[in-house]
Amino acid sequence: MKVFIVHAHPEPKSFNGALTRHAKVVLENAAHEVKISDLYAMKFNPVSDRRNFTSQKNQDYFKQQTEELYATEIDGFALDIRSEMKKLDWCDVLIFQFPLWWFSVPAILKGWVDRVFAMGRIYGGGKWYDNGTFQGKKAMLSLTTGAPETRYSETGLNGFIDDLLFPIHHGIFHYVGFDVLPPFIAWAVNRVSEEQRQHYLETYQQRLLSIDKTPAIAYPALADYDENFQLKSANEAS
Amino acid sequence: MKVFIVHAHPEPKSFNGALTRHAKVVLENAAHEVKISDLYAMKFNPVSDRRNFTSQKNQDYFKQQTEELYATEIDGFALDIRSEMKKLDWCDVLIFQFPLWWFSVPAILKGWVDRVFAMGRIYGGGKWYDNGTFQGKKAMLSLTTGAPETRYSETGLNGFIDDLLFPIHHGIFHYVGFDVLPPFIAWAVNRVSEEQRQHYLETYQQRLLSIDKTPAIAYPALADYDENFQLKSANEAS
Repeated sequence: MKVFIVHAHPEPKSFNGALTRHAKVVLENAAHEVKISDLYAMKFNPVSDRRNFTSQKNQDYFKQQTEELYATEIDGFALDIRSEMKKLDWCDVLIFQFPLWWFSVPAILKGWVDRVFAMGRIYGGGKWYDNGTFQGKKAMLSLTTGAPETRYSETGLNGFIDDLLFPIHHGIFHYVGFDVLPPFIAWAVNRVSEEQRQHYLETYQQRLLSIDKTPAIAYPALADYDENFQLKSANEAS
Repeated sequence: MKVFIVHAHPEPKSFNGALTRHAKVVLENAAHEVKISDLYAMKFNPVSDRRNFTSQKNQDYFKQQTEELYATEIDGFALDIRSEMKKLDWCDVLIFQFPLWWFSVPAILKGWVDRVFAMGRIYGGGKWYDNGTFQGKKAMLSLTTGAPETRYSETGLNGFIDDLLFPIHHGIFHYVGFDVLPPFIAWAVNRVSEEQRQHYLETYQQRLLSIDKTPAIAYPALADYDENFQLKSANEAS
């Protein structure tokens, strides 16, 4: 397997750092290949604007998707974006490693998506969901939380974790065609014992080494929607 | 009313730009006060790291919440963050104006939250949800989408818009104490007629001028959760 980890934490000595370093060792020892984009170390710019492109279709009005389509035609993406696109093409498995900040990814990782997942090159023209560019590839979130798991249960104060991650799982990974594996979550990493953190590393290792046997999260297929993009079964039931 | 609009779009001539300019005129004509943080125009840095702070509690290990608590004690937040905190203190109503990018806010706006909503100063120590710092204030999302409303229905291909916005509504606004007003959404702004866009501006105007009469989205109160932060009624029902 070729595994691409997009890593988003400002402190290399953090538990997120430990998880990514462990993943690299474990996967390479099992004869897999690993590439890592350590966004903080790369000083990745997450602000999507004209700097995404080496030239401009319309100098007077910046419409990102128009510029993305043009850049797709003329190979006009900025170097930092092209480099990430190549890693996406290369990989069989994409992993986002991050701390849950405000119930989502840190801005530096959101901006990686905003800038790299470009219309034309990555999606559009019928390339989406199970017909997406990255169909056949797998993607997985690996995250840490501040609060314990109970607070993210279906009746927990912070909301159900599956609901909180749905916009990322379905709206980012699945939108561009990835099969989405269940997330790996290290809960309350700052509150737990060293022993528990060691257990998290071992559990993550098992998850990484069983990626090819892990069933993806089930989503309806494009064929399950009607011409107005409404679930057919829902219409039949109503 | 004192209204604080955090505006996140790279193109001033965009419909997002039109909505924010219209909001300013409409609100000021009705004797309200308006402050706008135009994040792209300000070149706001969305990357949360040591630069959030003027001095450091721990030089060897960067833990953001530790540094936030320390900065709260010593008034050590960077100038760009302090300035935003003051606007939050000042306002009665907070509005996020943005295009829906990858089913969430653009990175520049996510990073505004990551950096400005600091532990100690903004939340923590029992200050959260209906006991949050900003209790008594209102917050509202105003967003534009690329796809039409049907695609964001409960049976729509992209997922139900209420579900997609839940992490922002509940996890950002409500977490720090705001009453969350229903979002204003201008659907498919690039596909609709000039007449429809005019209609959106008028609808937004009505929403802005009826903020004080608009019921907030209903969430359970802290008192509805048990000591493990589980909904009591859910426990009783199960």
